[in-house]
Amino acid sequence: MSTQDRSAIAIGANTWIWESPITDDALATLAPRIRGWGFDVVELPVETPGDWYPDRTAALLSGLGLGATVCCAMGPDRDLTGADPEVTAATQNYLLFCVDAAATIGATVVAGPIYAPVGRTGHLGPDEREAMLGRAAAALRPVAEHASSRGVRLGVEPLNRFETNLINTAAQVIDLVDRVDHPACGVMLDTFHMNIEEKHPAEAIRAVGPRLAHFHACGTDRGTPGTDHTDWTAIAGALREVGYAGPVVIESFTADNLTIATAASIWRPLAPSQDTIAVDGLAFLRRVLG
Amino acid sequence: MSTQDRSAIAIGANTWIWESPITDDALATLAPRIRGWGFDVVELPVETPGDWYPDRTAALLSGLGLGATVCCAMGPDRDLTGADPEVTAATQNYLLFCVDAAATIGATVVAGPIYAPVGRTGHLGPDEREAMLGRAAAALRPVAEHASSRGVRLGVEPLNRFETNLINTAAQVIDLVDRVDHPACGVMLDTFHMNIEEKHPAEAIRAVGPRLAHFHACGTDRGTPGTDHTDWTAIAGALREVGYAGPVVIESFTADNLTIATAASIWRPLAPSQDTIAVDGLAFLRRVLG
Repeated sequence: MSTQDRSAIAIGANTWIWESPITDDALATLAPRIRGWGFDVVELPVETPGDWYPDRTAALLSGLGLGATVCCAMGPDRDLTGADPEVTAATQNYLLFCVDAAATIGATVVAGPIYAPVGRTGHLGPDEREAMLGRAAAALRPVAEHASSRGVRLGVEPLNRFETNLINTAAQVIDLVDRVDHPACGVMLDTFHMNIEEKHPAEAIRAVGPRLAHFHACGTDRGTPGTDHTDWTAIAGALREVGYAGPVVIESFTADNLTIATAASIWRPLAPSQDTIAVDGLAFLRRVLG
Repeated sequence: MSTQDRSAIAIGANTWIWESPITDDALATLAPRIRGWGFDVVELPVETPGDWYPDRTAALLSGLGLGATVCCAMGPDRDLTGADPEVTAATQNYLLFCVDAAATIGATVVAGPIYAPVGRTGHLGPDEREAMLGRAAAALRPVAEHASSRGVRLGVEPLNRFETNLINTAAQVIDLVDRVDHPACGVMLDTFHMNIEEKHPAEAIRAVGPRLAHFHACGTDRGTPGTDHTDWTAIAGALREVGYAGPVVIESFTADNLTIATAASIWRPLAPSQDTIAVDGLAFLRRVLG
């Protein structure tokens, strides 16, 4: 299908399914394939600003009639929770770049664990946690204000316990986003993380409610949506109930790229091919999301 | 209930729900509570041989009419996959100690990720993986022979991808255990890890079949079984289908002990109290396992 019913949820594919980092050259080949399979949206990670050029990407996507979303990569130097103002400012600048890149390519969401480096874990005392959340909320507010001015919304994402110690659940991200208290600062939920952290993922979606700004879908093992034990009917029902208008983006990671495989702890292929995750996942999500 | 129908699956509680390491003194208080709640079995981790004394524990448990299982703690120095014969021998000696301790306290299973240190991850090339599996299988065989002579069975456990890169799935553990090829070397499955790694946990149980030597149950978030989104009816059906005779042991970890909380990546309480995980979990498992 090359056009999409206006009332249906748009479905996307994150380029991490195949590539890391994504570049203009790789995207010139990949984006037409993604469009050809029938996706509405391509999600572009910003690992290092400059990996891909927003103006060139805008022209490419526009020619294909392909929408976009932007996701962030929170490496070890990106942190809004610490006491070092230079690290906070550099991280804010990175997020502002992501927002501007999103606006340039017509994306209305910039999403990810935009508070702390992925992989930082360990015990946090209550005072330390409180200080970190306060600093993150304060640092996110000007980013949300800028995002709002560019027609973009932030989606703050909980990660599972092995990838962060700060925001693992919907309840915790609601706390952070409510501290930011800006309509352009919403929540991203991801079925992989919810499967580990939420007692009931559909209830987590309902708790987030209108704060839901973005949604990632993949199998419970990060493989193809629909080949796994997620209760997709319950997920789809909760998304409808909270009035989520999409997009739903398939996020997985290639095991063939050592950097991304290691970052995502992928030690085996999760599907017969990476294309399978996209193609079969899209067909399944079209059916279940209606 | 203080006695258990002979046909029903025995249910146990791992002392990591409350303590790490478990000692004779702590067990003298905890074991009667566990028995009083109606558990059939207490599971005792062996972190360092000598933390608890098998003879004394045997007397304590016998007096309470409480069964036992033993689980292993694979710290950084315990490894059967490497090329250093001293590390392998020391790890085998540790496992032999666990087997003898189990036999002394009347436990018929010693279970855990008894191949590599917990927390070792990273990419493995196919040749490296093959060499590691070959060494682990060769090292496990004499341990299985000794276990068999003591009336004990080993349960080799897959862990999720964030805790090991070697054995994440039922298919992978079946491969390892079939290489060992000894009836005393079986498999342990854990609902927490299966929830992350298996496309369908009940199918994983069926694939393991008669190799299943031990089973750990907890909520999808490591909280109370039954408060979560595990398909417990499917799990119970698969356990019956493969003729698993128990025990099913609740394994969770206290967030109050920094060492164990960090080892298990527990950054928040997963239930109103640790006792709740045991007491409500037991009531739920009695109902669902029949």
